[in-house]
Amino acid sequence: MTTASQRAQTWIETYERCTNAGDINAATALFDDAECFWRDLVFFSWNLKTTEGKQEIAEMLKATLPHAGKVTWRVDGEATDDEALTEAWVLFENDVARGKGYLKLRNGKAWVLLTTLLELKGHKERKDSTRSKGVMHGAIKDRTTLLEKREKEERELGYKTQPYCLIIGGGQGGIGLGARMRRLGVPTIIIEKNKKPGDSWRNRYKSLCLHDPVWYDHMPFLPFPDDWPIFSPKDKIGDWLEMYTKVMELNYWTETVCKSAKFDDRKKQWVVKVMRKGKPVTLKPAHLILATGLSAFANVPKLKGASTFKGEQHHSSQHPGPDKYKGKKVVVVGSNNSAHDISAALWEVGADVTMLQRSSTHIARSVTLMELEAGPLYSEAAVARGIDVTKADYLYVATPYKVQARGLIDVYKEIKKRDADFYARFEKVGFMHDFGDDESGLHVKYIRRGSGYYIDVGASDLVCAAKINSNLGWR
Amino acid sequence: MTTASQRAQTWIETYERCTNAGDINAATALFDDAECFWRDLVFFSWNLKTTEGKQEIAEMLKATLPHAGKVTWRVDGEATDDEALTEAWVLFENDVARGKGYLKLRNGKAWVLLTTLLELKGHKERKDSTRSKGVMHGAIKDRTTLLEKREKEERELGYKTQPYCLIIGGGQGGIGLGARMRRLGVPTIIIEKNKKPGDSWRNRYKSLCLHDPVWYDHMPFLPFPDDWPIFSPKDKIGDWLEMYTKVMELNYWTETVCKSAKFDDRKKQWVVKVMRKGKPVTLKPAHLILATGLSAFANVPKLKGASTFKGEQHHSSQHPGPDKYKGKKVVVVGSNNSAHDISAALWEVGADVTMLQRSSTHIARSVTLMELEAGPLYSEAAVARGIDVTKADYLYVATPYKVQARGLIDVYKEIKKRDADFYARFEKVGFMHDFGDDESGLHVKYIRRGSGYYIDVGASDLVCAAKINSNLGWR
Repeated sequence: MTTASQRAQTWIETYERCTNAGDINAATALFDDAECFWRDLVFFSWNLKTTEGKQEIAEMLKATLPHAGKVTWRVDGEATDDEALTEAWVLFENDVARGKGYLKLRNGKAWVLLTTLLELKGHKERKDSTRSKGVMHGAIKDRTTLLEKREKEERELGYKTQPYCLIIGGGQGGIGLGARMRRLGVPTIIIEKNKKPGDSWRNRYKSLCLHDPVWYDHMPFLPFPDDWPIFSPKDKIGDWLEMYTKVMELNYWTETVCKSAKFDDRKKQWVVKVMRKGKPVTLKPAHLILATGLSAFANVPKLKGASTFKGEQHHSSQHPGPDKYKGKKVVVVGSNNSAHDISAALWEVGADVTMLQRSSTHIARSVTLMELEAGPLYSEAAVARGIDVTKADYLYVATPYKVQARGLIDVYKEIKKRDADFYARFEKVGFMHDFGDDESGLHVKYIRRGSGYYIDVGASDLVCAAKINSNLGWR
Repeated sequence: MTTASQRAQTWIETYERCTNAGDINAATALFDDAECFWRDLVFFSWNLKTTEGKQEIAEMLKATLPHAGKVTWRVDGEATDDEALTEAWVLFENDVARGKGYLKLRNGKAWVLLTTLLELKGHKERKDSTRSKGVMHGAIKDRTTLLEKREKEERELGYKTQPYCLIIGGGQGGIGLGARMRRLGVPTIIIEKNKKPGDSWRNRYKSLCLHDPVWYDHMPFLPFPDDWPIFSPKDKIGDWLEMYTKVMELNYWTETVCKSAKFDDRKKQWVVKVMRKGKPVTLKPAHLILATGLSAFANVPKLKGASTFKGEQHHSSQHPGPDKYKGKKVVVVGSNNSAHDISAALWEVGADVTMLQRSSTHIARSVTLMELEAGPLYSEAAVARGIDVTKADYLYVATPYKVQARGLIDVYKEIKKRDADFYARFEKVGFMHDFGDDESGLHVKYIRRGSGYYIDVGASDLVCAAKINSNLGWR
């Protein structure tokens, strides 16, 4: 065992002893005095909770230890040492569940403890050596085939039988969760307003490509093939989601919208009215999950004179792509990602485009972001170091947002330095740009407000060369 | 370096020296006197060739060394020793190509040398760190999106432009090869008579499940998810192939049949007439590939009196499944896999079935086959030992058929012993069964004649309990 592993092992043994003895003071004393966090994803809190400082940690221990019961802990694999920081994967379990976590020690005290629920005992996902046989061998009177069972389920779920979970929204979030539920054997319906899985991507402006790279975009259980492009065009992602929904055998109701939902406190179930292809259906799930997206809601400003404007007006979410605007004059209101993408695509077909900048935009070059911001966890280099998307996601959540923002300030110092010439051009043309409230850049800005930035994949050149006439100061 | 690796290294160095010096006698002397094989998949012979004995090996060396040029060889990873047998992966390359092989030494001499072509230099498949970006960043006048490029390709390939390869038959073989061609950037069309990819599975009798287990069935580049059932029902495989064809962006022409094909020796291209959805199209590929299957052709015996028989008659490939035959009398002619499957399914719905056995059938229990025959290479245990489907396929082809058959005789001795009670029941009811010409069992029988066996998944119980009335001796 390495020194690092020994240090992690010692901490975890002491923590196990103190917490199982209910000695909250002793357990809390194992955390770092200057700064400490305990992030729990479900295992202890049955919620998503980040506690900061010994006081909050003590309170969460007090609230969760009684129902957690006896928990056994161990270090998984070898811990690593990097200057004063020791990092280790940990596994733990109690009577009802198994968990996986990550521990960061500073001088032997916990700076960050992440605890996440892996699985409830008795509800193991069937895979590998426990996968199903797929067919019942033997001669069985009046057998039903898997296809017939599947067809029966499709016919009856939501009508004769009720789903345990109802997921509203069939984009990548809803589909991914639906796949998890299917694997756990939890009867689930996903409802989606569009005609086909993937349409929420297909319906967007034609030049749209994912700005997040492939290593970030994998769905659970079925990773993209290893030649999947780094930045996936929207239709390719649409097709993937459609295929995924089919092969994962999800109960995916297309052209279905939710009209109302209320919780029946007596029966402990939701009563959800939906319209499925124009016909009303009432669903009574135990759990209702909103997977309608972080960025999907149109923010349409009320513009003075809009009602009497003679030209065409639409929100970016309704933008059909540039082709029909060749040779026309177009004003794009706003200067974040969609505005830049749409303006550039319009310029490319020969429209006369003016982009109105209402307030400062954070700009970062895709290529620099890929290397300095996403690269350590989500890149080919990370994969080569053994960090696949699952591991990367764990390591990501093992960093509380506060710490993340602090770390990113340093990253953006480096970005500013590397792309100094690039940023100087904005200042020259008077295009307002920033790096977020605390100079922590794009990712934190997205978490804080869901917008406010452009990942430069080409439009900034047009802005700085004034090929897109960026009018400033508009209100 | 282990002793085994050292032994392999010594052999390969000597072989490299002798072959590069053109010293065929010395090279041949490195092979085992009692028995030796060199199997070449494309690298040296540009063909699939198995040579046996020093004489044949010398002849192939003579024929191939001049155009192979200088080849450099090395052992890849550590070799393994098992009694008198040393086994090692080898890598080799010349000016035009890279190859991968497998070497089996007995007392330091080559018993088997496998050489396969990995890739032509300058035609590396783009994947991982060389994957495409997916989108061209920058502002580009009149850009076309990937979707537009794809649509243009679909519109023009076969009409304005010609495919380099034409694959006839869009089952798993044609689709898998098509995916490889797509990745290599070779313009390829797959033609398929059915309406959708996967229909060649969907159209079969409803109880059909793959008799080969999941570890054997993976398509290239996109393995099944880890909860895929062991024995996949036909419709599930059908859906997978349809999805695969779509996400791999194959040019897959449905409802298309080949009417004629001839090679134009002057232009060095094929002239292939096909009917696509009723319209004639002439294709001029450089390569024409038949992927119409090993087992897909109906063998319909001419039966005396068939033309005046009043009942329904059909071949197993047209069998719709059992449901409409409930309570009817049915005669199934033949006693191999489909006959057993169909008879059992008919019995399950309550038909009165008679299976006619024309000649002896090899019977083996699925569960025993999985463990003893397929298990060493294709099983969860094999995967746990690091043998995924690619590695298993290499190890499989590293065993010449002659050696394979010999090894399987021992396996079937064990099968006979383990399932002695099972086989005794056939003898009791007079159902003729065998283990192949040389007692080497199912797999070799399949390779030799494509049929002649039943993998028991339940029907044998019915046969032995005389629930399917197996009439014997019919001609």
